[in-house]
Amino acid sequence: MKNVNGGTVTSPQGFLAGATSASIKTKGGLDLGILCSESPCVAVGMFTINKVKAAPVVWSQGRVAAGKAQAIVVNAGCANACTGEPGLEDAAEMAKLAAKKLKLKAADVLVASTGVIGQRLPMERIAAGLKDISLSIDGGHELAKAIMTTDTFPKEIAVAASDGSFTIGGIAKGAGMIHPNMGTMLAFLTTDASVDRALLDKALRQAVDVSFNMVTIDGDTSPNDTVVVLANGKAGKVAAGSKSAKEFQAALTEVCTYLARCIARDGEGATKLIEVKVEKALSLADARAAARTIVGSPLVKAAVHGCDPNWGRIIAAVGRSGCEFDGAKIDLFLNDICVVRGGVAHYFDKKEVSLLMSGTEVSVQVSLNLGEWQATAWGCDLSAEYVSMNAEYST
Amino acid sequence: MKNVNGGTVTSPQGFLAGATSASIKTKGGLDLGILCSESPCVAVGMFTINKVKAAPVVWSQGRVAAGKAQAIVVNAGCANACTGEPGLEDAAEMAKLAAKKLKLKAADVLVASTGVIGQRLPMERIAAGLKDISLSIDGGHELAKAIMTTDTFPKEIAVAASDGSFTIGGIAKGAGMIHPNMGTMLAFLTTDASVDRALLDKALRQAVDVSFNMVTIDGDTSPNDTVVVLANGKAGKVAAGSKSAKEFQAALTEVCTYLARCIARDGEGATKLIEVKVEKALSLADARAAARTIVGSPLVKAAVHGCDPNWGRIIAAVGRSGCEFDGAKIDLFLNDICVVRGGVAHYFDKKEVSLLMSGTEVSVQVSLNLGEWQATAWGCDLSAEYVSMNAEYST
Repeated sequence: MKNVNGGTVTSPQGFLAGATSASIKTKGGLDLGILCSESPCVAVGMFTINKVKAAPVVWSQGRVAAGKAQAIVVNAGCANACTGEPGLEDAAEMAKLAAKKLKLKAADVLVASTGVIGQRLPMERIAAGLKDISLSIDGGHELAKAIMTTDTFPKEIAVAASDGSFTIGGIAKGAGMIHPNMGTMLAFLTTDASVDRALLDKALRQAVDVSFNMVTIDGDTSPNDTVVVLANGKAGKVAAGSKSAKEFQAALTEVCTYLARCIARDGEGATKLIEVKVEKALSLADARAAARTIVGSPLVKAAVHGCDPNWGRIIAAVGRSGCEFDGAKIDLFLNDICVVRGGVAHYFDKKEVSLLMSGTEVSVQVSLNLGEWQATAWGCDLSAEYVSMNAEYST
Repeated sequence: MKNVNGGTVTSPQGFLAGATSASIKTKGGLDLGILCSESPCVAVGMFTINKVKAAPVVWSQGRVAAGKAQAIVVNAGCANACTGEPGLEDAAEMAKLAAKKLKLKAADVLVASTGVIGQRLPMERIAAGLKDISLSIDGGHELAKAIMTTDTFPKEIAVAASDGSFTIGGIAKGAGMIHPNMGTMLAFLTTDASVDRALLDKALRQAVDVSFNMVTIDGDTSPNDTVVVLANGKAGKVAAGSKSAKEFQAALTEVCTYLARCIARDGEGATKLIEVKVEKALSLADARAAARTIVGSPLVKAAVHGCDPNWGRIIAAVGRSGCEFDGAKIDLFLNDICVVRGGVAHYFDKKEVSLLMSGTEVSVQVSLNLGEWQATAWGCDLSAEYVSMNAEYST
């Protein structure tokens, strides 16, 4: 497996993308885009588990259920969520307009939206905007920008098999309202591998489980979350159980993990990426719960923001996570410096650790010393800017 | 039932309290206190469900298991949590020192601590401080101040039975790390009612369930949370099933609810109290889950801080709360103005609602229109000050 230099969602063979500014975002900029394949694709997806599902999610879940699709039309600035029956019609109309442009059927087009909840889509501007979009094999970068809301940088990557037999590309957006089990997060993944639906579905679930589902920004989940993979089969065959299937899984997990870390690093108002690794847990569920509870704790996030090695908050988060643990066995490391050994304070130089925490990545490592399971979760610090951004979002 | 003017934890007959400054809090001020009864009390309590239990909680749980106690010694500034075996010895020593002063046995004295986790108690300063404390029937106010950490005002109340047959008093502290199932929250309740242990225990559980357990500040729970009631029997008899038992329950719930609302209003960095009422839910559990999820959502809290009627975040919070709901039936009111009817936007004047939200109390009312159950939860807005306070707490 190797990284593709400047790789993005259009790096795999046969994928095109483009974007335009349709004045949907109030602050302007690219906000409407299309991703499409030259030929029909196997399609699998995972969607929000929030019981409030935005209209585009309802539409796309229906299409993905058929296991195939050829394009995705997406907008930022308006989530088309809590818009009732008219919202469902708007999503269908958006698919139809994109299909007309691409000479496809509406049923081949997935729809995604992100932005403010409760407002109708400006359908006239969307119709006009879609006409403006020109598609190209370099269009992935523009599309990565068009799906941004409060994101501060586009998130994109591509990796290729060592023997060049396939490539996987991806773009994502995140920033706020992110939580395990899909926050307002969109991720579009493409591959030219020839892979069947069952294998692709299993590979996606496995990759999402250790990547996007281990990111938390603020504990809120959005009605719009969507992760989709389109596989057009233009390149090498990946058969279940083969060596290439192993590499495909590793590559897909790599792409998802990279994008997940980007989302965490770019959490609203974030100044630092927090990586929490919980080791030697009695079960995988325990390790995951503890890692996610720590990285989601507002008090831990605020302490990290202030470069404060306030480890008591980390232990308290483990204590309420529901995981099995023995307070007298726990070890804790901050940026590789041991601060707790056997559940009690271990001497450390506060200034030194605080200095280490002042960088752009803070690592928290908890060893429960009970079993063999481990998990890693990602998040970001909590800053005053998070509050000001979210106090003024809809107005 | 009637409010006692200027009432506090020493308003019921036969209770004394006092406090002193023992230099445990780095910022100075009262930080060590005693509450005691002239005669032995029936004692019941509820403690943190965090698996990390602070040493004073371990001590006090052991004492309350016996169903009786006569005094409480408490300090702020150091939580005596994650301090291992030495911490347990310190808690026992603190009880012993207080018992010596009060001419009681150590087993009659409960211990509570609040403050930074992971540091040992300064036992010499505590021993010296305890000698300084003078107890009086007016000492409740001082004690309410001594248990404050990041609290900005003392929380105290007393109510009496209509016929004057008994009085219930209480003090509490909260501010940060507060979440349903007990955050860093201490509440000491007293009554001169003559009430048996079973009745007192049941009454406390019922009162806490609809008050303290419905408050959330930041989703974190602390290893130190403690709610204790001491009943010394100096006044009227309250027998199970009697009319006075009903009034006793109502009075205890009133005291707990008042203190819970004070804790929410005084959340770290808070500028507003948020009251969320969820109505017409299919079950009580649903109503409680939805109300607590809404009031705990950082995005809702930030929107309220900015007086932004961003109702989509409220609906999204209901959607992820796990409660049964039908998106097409939900109605939503902000400060009594309908903003969502049947799941979709209902016309409202944004400026008017924003102005209403600019006060010190914001009410959110959600009607699920599915059943007959309701619940109320309390929290506060999320401000930039919350972040700055918690970025610098331990250093």
